Amino acid sequence: MKYALLLFSLFISSVQASEWRTPDPENTVYLELESGTVVIELAPFVAPEHVKQFTSLVNEGFYDGLDFYRVIEGFVAQGGDMSGEKASDFKTPLMAEFTRPLTGTSVFELVQQDDFFAPQTGYLHGFQAGRAIIDAQEWLIHCPGVVAMARSVDANSATTDFYVVIGQAPRHLDRNMSVFGRVIYGMEHIQGLPRGDARVNSGVIETPQHRGRILTARLASKVPETARLNLQIQRTDSKAMQQRLEQGRSMDNPFFKYKGNGKLDICYYPPRVRVADSD
Amino acid sequence: MKYALLLFSLFISSVQASEWRTPDPENTVYLELESGTVVIELAPFVAPEHVKQFTSLVNEGFYDGLDFYRVIEGFVAQGGDMSGEKASDFKTPLMAEFTRPLTGTSVFELVQQDDFFAPQTGYLHGFQAGRAIIDAQEWLIHCPGVVAMARSVDANSATTDFYVVIGQAPRHLDRNMSVFGRVIYGMEHIQGLPRGDARVNSGVIETPQHRGRILTARLASKVPETARLNLQIQRTDSKAMQQRLEQGRSMDNPFFKYKGNGKLDICYYPPRVRVADSD
Repeated sequence: MKYALLLFSLFISSVQASEWRTPDPENTVYLELESGTVVIELAPFVAPEHVKQFTSLVNEGFYDGLDFYRVIEGFVAQGGDMSGEKASDFKTPLMAEFTRPLTGTSVFELVQQDDFFAPQTGYLHGFQAGRAIIDAQEWLIHCPGVVAMARSVDANSATTDFYVVIGQAPRHLDRNMSVFGRVIYGMEHIQGLPRGDARVNSGVIETPQHRGRILTARLASKVPETARLNLQIQRTDSKAMQQRLEQGRSMDNPFFKYKGNGKLDICYYPPRVRVADSD
Repeated sequence: MKYALLLFSLFISSVQASEWRTPDPENTVYLELESGTVVIELAPFVAPEHVKQFTSLVNEGFYDGLDFYRVIEGFVAQGGDMSGEKASDFKTPLMAEFTRPLTGTSVFELVQQDDFFAPQTGYLHGFQAGRAIIDAQEWLIHCPGVVAMARSVDANSATTDFYVVIGQAPRHLDRNMSVFGRVIYGMEHIQGLPRGDARVNSGVIETPQHRGRILTARLASKVPETARLNLQIQRTDSKAMQQRLEQGRSMDNPFFKYKGNGKLDICYYPPRVRVADSD
């Protein structure tokens, strides 16, 4: 406990003054659904090959006109090519990128020692992440909004289809799937997608007309500037973020009669996102 | 660890053969939203006064025509009377029912010793629950779909408005709010509600026309039988449920390359619900 507090204090002393950062338009994808715009920030730092293939597929127009064909309430919304028949130059099965090796250059920002499922949780480049020093690995955590590539039982079988987590974090998928991004805007449109019946054919929506469609998927850098949202993401090393975490730990607010145990579920603390004024 | 396993084994030996139970129509509420039907099972065993008042309000027609006026993506959808002006015979501020004292008659079914936030988690009458033997208390946990009464800073100030959890479990609200039910059907309609901006006026949707409306709220026993759904809920003491939990613990499936640490997040394991054939 003392150790965790010490780490926390050291960390606090290095916080950044600026609260917001702008996502890189080369690592940001706009999905246009019938109900509105969904924006995904990609995570090449942990899943470079998945990001590369997904970006290639997006640029190829692969996802345009496809749909979310497997949507299970409280679990995931899976999108892509249900038929498996759509042609593409980028359908190579990908080698798993479930974790990345810890190196001396890791920028992991510790939030919680002895998380329920991971030795440590925190942020990695603004994404909710886990770390196991004993295994010398770090990885992105399956919090709501996380985007990962679907695969078959073979670890190295992901190709084109992806899922977004829409329920309580399915932490058993951590270190088992290649997480390559996170929804930073428009999550309510993913939550609004028509559901399948989880008890029938794994939640697949059999009738294509009943599925929520992907009108287009575009890299932000290829979306006309006038149509781009001026999204800003809360820096995880900002003072504001540290204050959020500290308030979560202390529950120092008269609203709370029971003050908890000081622990934080990293999935409850996604960095905030705002649409900045364009002036 | 040995102790937990022993408890688990004892528990297994007492599982019920029948997998499904039918919710009591006197403790079940149908909310008709514009997008579809939402069904709530009430929890009088832990929040009897809240259930009584909510049921009275429902029977009075109080919620008919009201709306979900505060909806924060990843957190809660709060419904009721934003104006506070609608007349009712049942607006008495309620005494808090955050927890209930442990008694010799508790039917708590242990799932997880040393949960991240609670000394123990498990099920209480089919609801996800926490227990602290040291404090001699048990309570319902803020998992997705949980229904609780909103209140001001005063613990004993809840009257009519309620919220449904729509994101990662806000466990800091456990033991701080009176949970009195759980959505057992139609959660996708709650997830599909229009959102407010969390950064402006606590997520309140200022324009009433932009809010998702509650057409009617009815006790199941007062819904015509032909319009009632034949809902059945998985018994938490059934063999099928115990197998789900056991599979979650062992992750004994070739799909999983990393086998986890054997711990279970109770919020990831709501009892399943099915619509049974009417024959």
